[in-house]
Amino acid sequence: MPLWQIYHPQGAYTAQDRQELSLKITKLYRRAGLPAFYVNVLFQEMAPGSFFVGGESDDEYVRIVIDHIARRMESEMFPLFMDAVHKLIAPWVANRGYRFEIHGDETPFEFWTVQGLTPPPAGSDEEKRWARDNFASAPIVAPEG
Amino acid sequence: MPLWQIYHPQGAYTAQDRQELSLKITKLYRRAGLPAFYVNVLFQEMAPGSFFVGGESDDEYVRIVIDHIARRMESEMFPLFMDAVHKLIAPWVANRGYRFEIHGDETPFEFWTVQGLTPPPAGSDEEKRWARDNFASAPIVAPEG
Amino acid sequence: MPLWQIYHPQGAYTAQDRQELSLKITKLYRRAGLPAFYVNVLFQEMAPGSFFVGGESDDEYVRIVIDHIARRMESEMFPLFMDAVHKLIAPWVANRGYRFEIHGDETPFEFWTVQGLTPPPAGSDEEKRWARDNFASAPIVAPEG
Repeated sequence: MPLWQIYHPQGAYTAQDRQELSLKITKLYRRAGLPAFYVNVLFQEMAPGSFFVGGESDDEYVRIVIDHIARRMESEMFPLFMDAVHKLIAPWVANRGYRFEIHGDETPFEFWTVQGLTPPPAGSDEEKRWARDNFASAPIVAPEG
Repeated sequence: MPLWQIYHPQGAYTAQDRQELSLKITKLYRRAGLPAFYVNVLFQEMAPGSFFVGGESDDEYVRIVIDHIARRMESEMFPLFMDAVHKLIAPWVANRGYRFEIHGDETPFEFWTVQGLTPPPAGSDEEKRWARDNFASAPIVAPEG
Repeated sequence: MPLWQIYHPQGAYTAQDRQELSLKITKLYRRAGLPAFYVNVLFQEMAPGSFFVGGESDDEYVRIVIDHIARRMESEMFPLFMDAVHKLIAPWVANRGYRFEIHGDETPFEFWTVQGLTPPPAGSDEEKRWARDNFASAPIVAPEG
């Protein structure tokens, strides 16, 4: 969680663009306490002539699809979150003249594993440990007394 | 909303095919009052040998994945909607001998923006304005006094 | 249902790998009574430098996204299911040194058709017929008395 799939025009982003943008996205979620490695960003080039808006081909479009897994947001949080996203992506999207649309979904927490491990509950000490380590590891079991 | 992702065999569709099919899809949603520009269609070629059905490679398959965002449908509406979809896609799918499967999801309205703007409520005057303009614009605020 | 989208490093899997892995996935769902042809697996190569984890490019990662349509699972079933998935994919993922993350969603049953047909209810005689035939066919209507 989250998985961002960024569908973008061919050749739109250099390796540096991708790294900087994915780092900014990571920082957004770090502020909410998520481990950095939870943040997955996949850049997908759209071949020219493969994306259509209202029945017209549009090769200057960035279409972002987000899956949130680790956290649920209250309805009133979405406008704030989306505003933060707009600001974050502006240098690579609006400021370059690309049209854009973003939508996301919230998928079941229990239908999710990282490196074969069940992630710890949101906000738990174990999650904080994963965040500090920036690494998924098996739960630490207290040694028997 | 909607986002149609059409996974199809390599070379299956010409530029004209894509334009005509995406225009037909757009018209389906226009009938329900949606702005044309809400309708996003992404054609994704599947490389030969990359799609499997029941454990067997199938390169004559069209797999459509739909996200609905702006509208929720009552359960009893789905058969009618899917029938309309089958008729609409037939010239590019069944009539060409492709096997096909379609499924969709309904994702949260509030987890969605277009050109950085929160879309107006379903069926509202503002949505009608967006539909008339075929353009996303900030709400019109009544002048004071 | 299910649709597995397997995002993987370029060149990671041979045709034989793909066939064997998709066959294993199919068998997992066959055990739950699903028709084999319900199981769709799409292998998607990620171009080098297109996938980021925590803001860092990672080209040794397998990212699996699953949509379940035909069945809902009780919360307590997920750990067992995910364990079965981990064992199943190990020869192509963990055992090859790839890092991996898996998540899935459950999408509405009624927003789904196969070959233009509404699939029969879960566990019904008609579904058993589809499973035996490994083929989607129109319902058999009892001849009038």
